[in-house]
Parts: sequence; C-alpha cells; structure tokens
Amino acid sequence: VRQTLLVPELRELLKSDDLDTLRRFCRQAHPESVAELLSGLETPEIWRVLHCLDVPLRAEIFSHFDLERQVELVTGENRREMARLLEEMSPDDRADLVQRLEPQIRDEILPLVARAEREDIRKLVAYEQGSAGAVMSTDYAALRPEVTISQAIEQLRLQAPDKETIYYVYVVDENRRLIGFVSLKDLILARPNQTVADVMHTDVISVTVDEDQEQVARKIEKYDLIAIPVVNGNGVLVGIVTHDDAMDIIRQEQTEDIEKFMAIGGRHEVGEYLRTSALAHFRRRVVWIMILAGLGLVSGMVVQHFESTLMSLLILAAYMPMLADTGGNTGSQSATLVVRALALGEIGPRDVLRVISKEFFVALLLGLVLAVLTFGKVFFFSQGVQLPHGVTLAKIAVAIAMALGLQVISATLIGALLPLGAARLKLDPAVVASPALTTVVDITGLLIYFTTAKLLLGI
Amino acid sequence: VRQTLLVPELRELLKSDDLDTLRRFCRQAHPESVAELLSGLETPEIWRVLHCLDVPLRAEIFSHFDLERQVELVTGENRREMARLLEEMSPDDRADLVQRLEPQIRDEILPLVARAEREDIRKLVAYEQGSAGAVMSTDYAALRPEVTISQAIEQLRLQAPDKETIYYVYVVDENRRLIGFVSLKDLILARPNQTVADVMHTDVISVTVDEDQEQVARKIEKYDLIAIPVVNGNGVLVGIVTHDDAMDIIRQEQTEDIEKFMAIGGRHEVGEYLRTSALAHFRRRVVWIMILAGLGLVSGMVVQHFESTLMSLLILAAYMPMLADTGGNTGSQSATLVVRALALGEIGPRDVLRVISKEFFVALLLGLVLAVLTFGKVFFFSQGVQLPHGVTLAKIAVAIAMALGLQVISATLIGALLPLGAARLKLDPAVVASPALTTVVDITGLLIYFTTAKLLLGI
Repeated sequence: VRQTLLVPELRELLKSDDLDTLRRFCRQAHPESVAELLSGLETPEIWRVLHCLDVPLRAEIFSHFDLERQVELVTGENRREMARLLEEMSPDDRADLVQRLEPQIRDEILPLVARAEREDIRKLVAYEQGSAGAVMSTDYAALRPEVTISQAIEQLRLQAPDKETIYYVYVVDENRRLIGFVSLKDLILARPNQTVADVMHTDVISVTVDEDQEQVARKIEKYDLIAIPVVNGNGVLVGIVTHDDAMDIIRQEQTEDIEKFMAIGGRHEVGEYLRTSALAHFRRRVVWIMILAGLGLVSGMVVQHFESTLMSLLILAAYMPMLADTGGNTGSQSATLVVRALALGEIGPRDVLRVISKEFFVALLLGLVLAVLTFGKVFFFSQGVQLPHGVTLAKIAVAIAMALGLQVISATLIGALLPLGAARLKLDPAVVASPALTTVVDITGLLIYFTTAKLLLGI
Repeated sequence: VRQTLLVPELRELLKSDDLDTLRRFCRQAHPESVAELLSGLETPEIWRVLHCLDVPLRAEIFSHFDLERQVELVTGENRREMARLLEEMSPDDRADLVQRLEPQIRDEILPLVARAEREDIRKLVAYEQGSAGAVMSTDYAALRPEVTISQAIEQLRLQAPDKETIYYVYVVDENRRLIGFVSLKDLILARPNQTVADVMHTDVISVTVDEDQEQVARKIEKYDLIAIPVVNGNGVLVGIVTHDDAMDIIRQEQTEDIEKFMAIGGRHEVGEYLRTSALAHFRRRVVWIMILAGLGLVSGMVVQHFESTLMSLLILAAYMPMLADTGGNTGSQSATLVVRALALGEIGPRDVLRVISKEFFVALLLGLVLAVLTFGKVFFFSQGVQLPHGVTLAKIAVAIAMALGLQVISATLIGALLPLGAARLKLDPAVVASPALTTVVDITGLLIYFTTAKLLLGI
C-alpha cells in the first residue's frame, strides 16, 4: 500500500476510476493526513473520494477538515447522506458544525437525523459558547460499580468503537451520578474477579457543565489527564472533554490573549489570517486605532499647552520621541509580564503589593541607568544649541535626565497596575492592550517632561 | 478517607504523629494535589510526609513539585535515599532535575544510582536542550510483531506499572527499529489468537531525536495523539513524548513568543514572575530598553534636522505624538497577526505577496479614514494658530492628513514585512519585537511628516 499520495496522483486515480487504491490509502493513512491531502481537491472530487468509503471512516475523515471547509462541503452533499454522516460524527464535532450551518440548511438536514443524535445535537448546541458544555463530547465510556473486571472489559469491548476514549472509564450510580473512575490500565492490572468498585478511584477531578473552557483546559493540563468528566449541577455525568480538545482550547485562548493585548478586536480564531478578507481585517483593527489616535491628540494638546516652553528651548523637542518611546517600552514590558503571570494563574489581584515593590525596584534601576546616560548625551553632545538667558547646558541635561527617570518609573508602574486593576474588576487583564498603554504613558510622559523642564529651568 | 486537607490540618497530623491518615490521604488524592498542598510546608516537614510513603508513590508526588522546589528538596535528603528516588522517577522528569542540580550535588548522587538508570540519565541529559531527545521519556511499552494478542496483553500487564503510557504500544523488529504501533483499544478489540502484526498500523507518525520540541508538540496536536514515538537516525525507537509534555511545551513556547515579541530577553520560563529577583528582571529588560532608547535618539535627530520647519510652524509639534503613536499601533497590529500566522504555520515566507496585498488594502482603508478625520480636526479646530506668510490652514491640514495616511501605510507594511523577512532568513519572526517596530516607525514617520510638510508648504 502506498503510504503517501500527492494531489495530482489522487486526481489520476479518480480519473482512471481506481477506487480500490484510493480506498486502501484512506484506510491506512491517518485521517488528518487524508483530510489534509483531500483539501487540495474541489468539493465534488472530495465527495467522490469520500463516497467510496464506509460511513464511519467517511465521518472520521470529514471531521478532520477545518470547520469552514466542512460548511462548504455540506452544501455539495445530498441532505439524507449528510444526515447519515452527522449521526456517525463525534458529538462535539457535529455540534460545532451544526452551529456554523446556515439556518435554512440546518433546518433541512436536522429532521433527517435519527432521533437520539438529533436530541444530542440540540442539547450540545444549547450550551453557552466557551463553556465546558459547548466543547464536551457525549460519547464517553461508563460502567456500574458492581460489575466484575472481566465483565467490565467485555462491556468496554462492545462500547469501544463508538467512544471518544476508553482509556478513562467513568463509574456512575443508578442515577448516572459520577461516583468514580477507572483507567483501562487499572482494569488490565486488576484480577478478573474483583469488582469495578474495588479498583475505582473516588477522588475524581471533574468540571461542571457551565465552567469556562479555559478552566477545563487548565485542569486537564495540571493533572495530566487524557480526559476530564463534565457533570451537571446534580453531579450527573453528562460528557467528557478530551486532551486534544484541551490543546485546541489552549491555542485558541493564546491567540485571543495576544490579539487582544495588541489591540485587535473581533473574533479571535486560530489560523484565519489569509482566509479573512481585508475588509474584515480592517473592521477588527479600526476601532482601537481610532480610539488611540484620539488619545494621541491629547498628547498633542499637552505639547500645545507648553508651546512657549518649547519655543524658548527647542532642544526639548529633540528628546520628546525618545522619552515617549522609552515610556511605552518599559510600560509594555511590565504589562506583558504581569498579564502573562495573571493568565497562567501565577499571581492574582491580591499580589498587588509584591508586584508593585518588584516593579518599582526594576524601574528604579532602569530609570537610573537611562538617566545617567541621557545626562551624558545632552551635556557632552549638544554643541551649538542656543540657550535662553540664565539656563546652562548642565541644567538642561539634569532636567531631561530627571524627566526620563520619572517617566520610566511611572510608566513601569502604570503598566503593572492597570492589568492588576482589570483583574480585580474581574475584567480580562489583556484589555489593557499594549498600544493603549503606550499611548497613555505618552500623555503622562509629556506632562512629566514639560513640568520638570518648567520647574527646573524656570522657562 | 478525607478527600482534601489544608496546610494547618496537615501540620496537626504531623504533630500528633498520625501517619496513617497522612498515608491514606496521599494515596487517595491526585499526586498533583498532594504536591500542591505539601508545597505549603517547610522542606523537613515535606520529607517527613514523603518518608511515610513507599518509594514509587514518593517519586510520583516528588515529580509533581515544580523544578525549583525539587532542587531545594534534594539538598534536604540523604544522598542514598535521593538516588533511590531518582531510580523510581520517570526518565524525563529525573533528567530535567539532574540537569538543574549543582555539579557537586550531582556528582555525589549519581554514583549511587543503579547502573541502568544512571546510563539512562547520562543519555537523556546529553541531548540538546529543546530537542525531542531532551523532552522524551524512555519508559515506553514495546512489543514484537509475531506475538499473539493474548500474549501481548499479558506482556503489557507486566510492563504497565513502569511505563509512562500503555495506551499506545510500539512494535519493533529484532534491531529495535520502529515498524508499527497498536493502541490498547486495538488490542482489546482484536481476537486473542491474531498476532500483533495482523492488527498493527504501519503508518506510524514519529519524530527524530534532534527534531525541535515545538515540532513535536505540533505533531501531537495535529494528529490528536496520546504519545509520539522518537526514533534515531537509523529508525531505532529511543523514546516517546506524551500529550502532557506537549502541552507543557506549547505553554512554554507561548510564553517565549510573547516575551520575545515584547522585547524581554533571557530565559523564558513559565510561572517564574514572582520567583525571579528584581535584579534578574532588570537584566532581562535593560538591553532592549537601551537599544530602543538609542533608536529613540535617532528620532530626535530627525526632529533636530527639521528644526527650522518646526520653528516656523509650531502647530506641527502638536500632531507629532499622534503620528508616532498611530504608526506604532498600526505596525504592531499587522506584525502581531503576521507573527502569529507564521508561528501557527498558517503562512510561510512564500506568502509574502498575498500578505502584502492584504495588508496594503487594510492600510489604505485605515489611512484614508484617519486622514479624513485628521484633516477635519486640523481645519476646523485650529483657532488662533499663527500662520507663516503664504501658508493657509487648509494647506496645513492637507499636509498633516497626507503625512498621517502615508505613515499608516508604511508602518503597516513594515510591520508585516519585517517578520516575513526574519522568517526567510530562518530567524524567529518574534525577534521583530513590537517595541522595536514602534521605535523604527517613529523614525520613518517623522521623516515622512517633515518631508511632506516641507514639500507641500514650502517652509
């Protein structure tokens, strides 16, 4: 059997109607690889390949296309066949797909889906986006505590083909309340005549159905789980979230955090850069850019306010950009570290004093180094500057250096405090986007700069 | 059995020497929870608790402390006991620990470790940091192809207690070359008298020992694997990387990307904000801040160069901060999206034309909107501005608006092109840190601004 194929070869096989080879390839390769390869074909071609496979494998490969592609493919398929496919797909994947379909198409297909699966779809679609319920699968393996190990393994053998995983098996009582779990490893290691109750772990780590998906992923990560059970308010087992879903969640949250932090709005989807139209990109970016430009005008007003100071000492203008940049940079650094530590749960709003004292010390060092160097730059490399009456170059150098030091300290503290404040208000710390911070410390920086100059130089 | 304990209760139990309760709790709770709870105790107290457990469980719980804590704990333990513990720890965890120990302590402990485990540690420690070899575990389950399913399950039962996972079992030939894999699910579903060769999958997805850890994690994620086999140059199976290690890698790479992108240097470790001293924080940040401050001085030189233009039309100074901020913001947005798409493998250096055309269109729209609004702001809200001879307010408004539009377009394109260029040079795109970009487009922005003003207004 050929292990890998290329799109032209695939087309060749379709043309020469060599469906046997195609079928063998699809069975042997990983469904992800098959889907990746098929993505290079047109919709009707994809369906020709999928139709020569049995429905379970077809559903498996279909689930590995990305969601946009799945939606496209649905339109090219007979409604009744599509309903068959949905029945075979895993519950979480098909719920995601149904949620993305046009209402009209959904209403045509759903009535054709078998009753049990249709109910399951309705239930999963109803959970709030981003909750454990919305990402969970309902295909989990479950056992009763009183069965023996050999019966349990026999039951799993029957359940296995339809389940998302059989490596973790959940133990439920007569009301389907979660009372324990066993791993397949436990079952393999146990004596055949023991009961499930003998070997099960009763300290099950679980999540509730309305818990945030990020919490779910964090628990799977923390406890190194293959899957985590999801229970409703009464402790009844309603689904599981698997380790691969947790990874997808981590990727998605990561994209969201970075984009938010860099002042990009809208939906934060993984891997949609090229597929998003320029107009949609524009819409995601324009709002923040306008708000920030508005804030930038405030900086301008500060400059205008100190017009006479600037006029009488134009050398101040030459250090304005450096002052603004440095404030933005030091502020962004501290904000990044604090936002990250908050996101990973290393610190919380209660740690405000520890963070502030640490950042203050860092800022003091940074401010000192920069102030000394700036003093040197102004004092020794400012030949030919026209000085107003009564002002010496040394005085100017001191004023600029001092303003820079103060700017570094205030910007660093603002950068650390704003995300902590957001967290205390139960907001996402990443709303304190780095560009917004840069623009804000621009304003405070210019105020510090001109006030210091005015006070020290008396102009 | 009590399911949860608090630190004071734990101390109470230690004081009253109620080791039975302690032991029961440690056996029943998840090792991660136990380690988390014990972290609240002093080193001697932790050892007292650990010593009432058998060595395998002790090793399991010990591995769940974070690395810094493990290093601390090692110093509080008898060398011979520590060697016992290392023998029981999983190969990847103990290699990580040994790597972090002081050379002197390492040299005292390693000779006491049993020969096989010592060799294993030496081998793993020798792999380059960040490679598959450095993160893999050598405790994998392997089978020969000719054994029957019932023999296979029997063998796994024997191997199970020592293996990282038995859910994926690798099939090797007489030279230990990887020739296939079976999942435990396949084995459970197969007929007992079939052979492993009958049911194994021959299209194994694997990585080589020197592959980058990020690649490894990406493959585990893409193919939804519980573990991935690691082979050497001859195709010989040498280890596995498991799904939970992949998650840790993703977290770590994510921290690294964000910190690099925000111009923070040094080692990028997850969850070390509070533990890192202020001095160490200072060192991680100061280099970039100095370089950027230096670049900021270049901006200042541009301003100085156009001193006479600024003198004769001081209103230009009021729009300088907005121009600089907007350039930084639009540039950071496009750089973020491009860096992210590159990191997730959605685009590559070959996509430069598609990216540029998309960004150009986005920038055109952003530039137009901002230019129109800025024109309005300057033209309608600039009462009392002193105009030099021959210059009208309309002309000034046109010049500022045009400069802003050009700045948005150039900054957006620079933001997109720099990471693509870095990727083409096989550098990490995140080296084009957002603060550096902001500072660079400050310089280009001021050049555009004053040149436009000079040309259009003739001053």
